[in-house]
Amino acid sequence: MSDRIKVFAPASASNLGPGFDVLGLALERPGDVVEAEVVEARGVEIVEVTGADTLTTDAAQNVAGIAATAALTRLGPDAPGVRLWLHKQMPLASGLGSSAASSVAAAVAVNLLLGARLSEDEVIRCALDGEAAVSGGIHADNVAPSVLGGIVLVRSCDPLDLVRLPVPESLRIAVVHPHATVKTDEARRLVADRRFEISQAVANLGNIAALVTALHTDDLELLGRSISDALVEPIRAPLVPVFGEVKKAAVAAGALGCSISGSGPSLFAFAASKTAADAVADAMQAAFDAAGVRSDRYVGGVNPRGAHLV
Amino acid sequence: MSDRIKVFAPASASNLGPGFDVLGLALERPGDVVEAEVVEARGVEIVEVTGADTLTTDAAQNVAGIAATAALTRLGPDAPGVRLWLHKQMPLASGLGSSAASSVAAAVAVNLLLGARLSEDEVIRCALDGEAAVSGGIHADNVAPSVLGGIVLVRSCDPLDLVRLPVPESLRIAVVHPHATVKTDEARRLVADRRFEISQAVANLGNIAALVTALHTDDLELLGRSISDALVEPIRAPLVPVFGEVKKAAVAAGALGCSISGSGPSLFAFAASKTAADAVADAMQAAFDAAGVRSDRYVGGVNPRGAHLV
Repeated sequence: MSDRIKVFAPASASNLGPGFDVLGLALERPGDVVEAEVVEARGVEIVEVTGADTLTTDAAQNVAGIAATAALTRLGPDAPGVRLWLHKQMPLASGLGSSAASSVAAAVAVNLLLGARLSEDEVIRCALDGEAAVSGGIHADNVAPSVLGGIVLVRSCDPLDLVRLPVPESLRIAVVHPHATVKTDEARRLVADRRFEISQAVANLGNIAALVTALHTDDLELLGRSISDALVEPIRAPLVPVFGEVKKAAVAAGALGCSISGSGPSLFAFAASKTAADAVADAMQAAFDAAGVRSDRYVGGVNPRGAHLV
Repeated sequence: MSDRIKVFAPASASNLGPGFDVLGLALERPGDVVEAEVVEARGVEIVEVTGADTLTTDAAQNVAGIAATAALTRLGPDAPGVRLWLHKQMPLASGLGSSAASSVAAAVAVNLLLGARLSEDEVIRCALDGEAAVSGGIHADNVAPSVLGGIVLVRSCDPLDLVRLPVPESLRIAVVHPHATVKTDEARRLVADRRFEISQAVANLGNIAALVTALHTDDLELLGRSISDALVEPIRAPLVPVFGEVKKAAVAAGALGCSISGSGPSLFAFAASKTAADAVADAMQAAFDAAGVRSDRYVGGVNPRGAHLV
């Protein structure tokens, strides 16, 4: 049959402080890899999942399988079948868009394998089908940056309306992932069940508008002041071990701003240089260590590329 | 004594769809005028209010008097007294920042009269003292654009953190004021008493972020799509006679977007040219007329100047 291809889709940090469900950025690493080849039998077969013991190879239950199936469906009744290998190269339930990365890698792989006839928006919709299966709601703030790269604004999911935002050249991100898990659907339910005062919304409206301005004007101080979340962070902070201490350590070490990545427990911090971001990651890991919580770190820039062939 | 000076402060459209309490822009007209002169007696005397029968000349009760008193206080114990004439040249309780315009004109006049020693931020704080007296809460989205001109983001009121946003060159605004009044404090209480779902906040977060991007990239189509308010417009629309019909008429006539200005009942619509804005204002007034509601209109660009000597 055809040659096998291999696609990498990056992890993503979403929300970015005030932007619950609407802002996300692609990380340089980690990410997931999907290998794919065409087969005669219709439908999707997942041959193997490496890097995660708990994930099924049942294509109807695995987010990569669901996204790949959605891509085949969009490619039309003449599309052949595909066989996939999913290589999880990042932690599950970490707040770094793990299910999105798997979904995106699979949808992009199927599309590239079969002539790249789907638009970026269509690929994103396919990946959202996968994401929705585990996260308990449609939100494109991980999938969109994983497909497109960069920092992406999800103005609306229905209809899908995405806006790419500029990335200040010196911006660096320190992501620290403590060894704990937060189930996305449970973290989302906590938020969905809550009712909010207008003052909480107003605080986030002011901060997200300032954050977007900061990106457009390369104003890293304003960016830092804008990383503030009056809606969701107060609800989810208790899910992250020693959240307050780690955030305080990040800011004391020079972070422009720090908040929870996605549903957590990973935290992200912005910094104005690689050196500063390393120092911030050091401080965050030390604060987790002090509480007996082991952690991993990912320090880098915003990934300008979305999912791509490797 | 000293010469008398005269200051004009522009009206303002605030909220601008998704940006409750955080976005506002200065209109070319209408606006209020304050004349001021130095007197020996300490404190503020309001000699006369023209253009509004219902406003008091008691400086402790009139927003212009309160703002002028705040400016004198900030100027220090050696500041002399001032005598003011307030000329209301715009409707009260219209959603166009009427109390803000009076407060700003008074604060700016006192500052200019006494050596212009207050910074723009300090002048804004003085005007906010006046505004707070009538509106039932501190919100700077009328006062800030009336002082600074242009489109202003209020990232935070406490501490005051204002960001000037760029104004697309071809942007025009049609404001239509139906002859009805909405009391700001009552309209604010309606919102303050309500609790909101996260999905409503998410919709506004996506739209305000897109709106700010549209201003930075001169993308009037995106600007139009972003004029959408899931938080406050649904609550306040019933306060505006035939709101739905007028908004529909604006959009049908080519408006990029249309929503309530401030607490209403005035509506604003964005358009891409003066001609388009005139056509939109025609359509909006016709829709009010059809319901037997008389109205005034103000069509123009964003006022690049804030309050100034005339």
